[in-house]
Amino acid sequence: GSERQFNFSAGPAVLPEEVLLEAKNELPVYDHVGASVMEISHRSAAYDKIEESAREHMKKLLGLSDDWHVLFLQGGASMQFYQVPLNFLPEDGSADYVITGRWGTKAIKEARRVGDVRVAASSEDDDFSHVPPVEEWDLNPDASYVHITTNETVNGNQFQKDPNLDVPVVTDASSELLSRPMDLDGYGMIYAGAQKNVGPAGVTIVLIHDDFLQQRKQPLPTMLDYGTHAAKRFNTPPVFPIYMVEKVLRWLDDLGGVDAIHAINQRKSQKLYNAIDGSDFYRGTVDEDSRSMMNVTFRLVEEDLEPVFIKKAKENGLLSLGGHRTVGGMRASLYNALPEEAVDTLVAFMKEFERTHG
Amino acid sequence: GSERQFNFSAGPAVLPEEVLLEAKNELPVYDHVGASVMEISHRSAAYDKIEESAREHMKKLLGLSDDWHVLFLQGGASMQFYQVPLNFLPEDGSADYVITGRWGTKAIKEARRVGDVRVAASSEDDDFSHVPPVEEWDLNPDASYVHITTNETVNGNQFQKDPNLDVPVVTDASSELLSRPMDLDGYGMIYAGAQKNVGPAGVTIVLIHDDFLQQRKQPLPTMLDYGTHAAKRFNTPPVFPIYMVEKVLRWLDDLGGVDAIHAINQRKSQKLYNAIDGSDFYRGTVDEDSRSMMNVTFRLVEEDLEPVFIKKAKENGLLSLGGHRTVGGMRASLYNALPEEAVDTLVAFMKEFERTHG
Ligand SMILES: Cc1ncc(COP(=O)(O)O)c(C=O)c1O
Ligand SMILES: Cc1ncc(COP(=O)(O)O)c(C=O)c1O
Ligand SMILES: [Mg+2]
Ligand SMILES: [Mg+2]
Ligand SMILES: [Mg+2]
Ligand SMILES: [Mg+2]
Repeated sequence: GSERQFNFSAGPAVLPEEVLLEAKNELPVYDHVGASVMEISHRSAAYDKIEESAREHMKKLLGLSDDWHVLFLQGGASMQFYQVPLNFLPEDGSADYVITGRWGTKAIKEARRVGDVRVAASSEDDDFSHVPPVEEWDLNPDASYVHITTNETVNGNQFQKDPNLDVPVVTDASSELLSRPMDLDGYGMIYAGAQKNVGPAGVTIVLIHDDFLQQRKQPLPTMLDYGTHAAKRFNTPPVFPIYMVEKVLRWLDDLGGVDAIHAINQRKSQKLYNAIDGSDFYRGTVDEDSRSMMNVTFRLVEEDLEPVFIKKAKENGLLSLGGHRTVGGMRASLYNALPEEAVDTLVAFMKEFERTHG
Repeated sequence: GSERQFNFSAGPAVLPEEVLLEAKNELPVYDHVGASVMEISHRSAAYDKIEESAREHMKKLLGLSDDWHVLFLQGGASMQFYQVPLNFLPEDGSADYVITGRWGTKAIKEARRVGDVRVAASSEDDDFSHVPPVEEWDLNPDASYVHITTNETVNGNQFQKDPNLDVPVVTDASSELLSRPMDLDGYGMIYAGAQKNVGPAGVTIVLIHDDFLQQRKQPLPTMLDYGTHAAKRFNTPPVFPIYMVEKVLRWLDDLGGVDAIHAINQRKSQKLYNAIDGSDFYRGTVDEDSRSMMNVTFRLVEEDLEPVFIKKAKENGLLSLGGHRTVGGMRASLYNALPEEAVDTLVAFMKEFERTHG
């Protein structure tokens, strides 16, 4: 009843147990302030310290220079789909979108409400089974930005290289932020809903380079203007989610940072892809050169057995292995906080399931 | 070090200790799901149940019919300042605003970016020391809505009656929602950042009548369209803040609902106002007929002593009694979860402070 199981949820997703226990320990009183962290002013010294530590750890972990703003916003990545073009797509301008899955498709839809957008590349015709190589993109040199989705959570594909183009790149990194070192040079902005690698749901991470920020349109509604939040703490932030993010970032730093976790993540995903490739009972859904290290999507060759696989896995303490409702099949999300032991257990389960059902 | 003190913070604010202990107890595993509440899918049955219970309790507590939608949004009340006119102020239309303090002033500023707005009444010239009587408002019969702030958190004034006008009323009830029964008849929409009476920061409560919802403009950006969230759970909600809200609502229901808490709140505020009025050492800042039951603002006649008062109060376990930085003086926020004992202790402290410094 009260035991933690191996949690492959795509998001909200597994958090480090240490972080949860630290939060537990700080209820109902946080650090000598006479109240829990949820009950103190967002203008208090205690909260200042938490937000500042979160910002500094984020910068350290990703190697962000002081030209980068680290914002903690609300509304999820879905709000960014609109907020990006609202800030950066001028009435007489244009933006380029690379569509590699469900989330990029949603992003371009919101941008179309704001202005002129072009599809520079898309793998929709191939069921998003690969990321189109950058050499094949049809880019507009006058675009305000190029929007990409470096990891498509539903479709299980991932960019293997950060693009560096003539115009600033904006990426939705919701399901990969902090899972690997990033080459920042090409980016104007990186955003992510926290609820995969970074923390619980309820806070959106926005990393924005100051040169790009200065290109935004004016005037804008105060809350939707990135400049508002880069300049000051305008209104009440989602305190508890940010407090949890700060703990996750410290956990990752203590563990050795993104290089260390990247090595672990590569090992975890390789183990699972090996199990998929090594058997005729399972098959991957994404081309090898585009596979995600975070969201491993796969099928049973006998698709009828998939519900049985998911149910039995759950009975064996392997949670949330069902694929997204729009694509079916299986998906194992292997985020930072998922222990390697979870993958080993899943691989063993797959072998056993094949033995008994294959 | 680890003891809870009396917390008069204006928001984020005191929560019921029972609620915090329940949350503590549900870490790191929630209700047999093998993970904490922060780590489960927002499409899971366990989360469905939480959100549905929060919605049903909100309806029960406020007596909302099924014509009302209960939405759990993000961005704080500040986002509503823009989202309300974006949805309801047509290009060729107009909206009326009643300005009774800092927050109404911020609300009208965002509405001006969208379209034509009128100030139907304002007490700015009197330092927001009262709420202009409804008979004196200069209303436009063709307005799309009338926006009011039923409790001005910074200025310490509060409507004593819910207005019922010819056009739908929209109120920012951030600092009073669930502290008293509301007469719903005149309202088209009621919104509140949760972080005073309803829960922690990170979720915004929006109650919207379906007749009013149907009057919104189309098309709108998906995430900013109230219709999106009335129709379905469009994206990842702020799970943990909503989970806490659900607990607070159950706590209030168990306690007897808004009628019961209203009686307690009236007693608490009356005790404090009596202490202010009964002495020449303290003075209130708001006219008697407009005083807030939630945020009691007061001054020392000798204003130089105010920092000493606030500091000594803190040393005596009475936290966050400083007035908002824009107005100074003192403010005691007496939200639902603040025990009556806190007010008794404050009143005793005030007597003692007057004896030693008066
Ligand atoms: C890549 C990506 N983008 C956007 C979203 C939507 O995020 P949110 O639910 O925070 O709006 C998700 C959610 O899973 C995602 O994985
Ligand atoms: C009445 C009122 N409206 C709006 C706000 C702003 O709320 P938020 O910080 O959630 O945007 C506050 C915050 O204290 C408030 O008291
Ligand atoms: Mg580095
Ligand atoms: Mg295979
Ligand atoms: Mg009632
Ligand atoms: Mg007096």
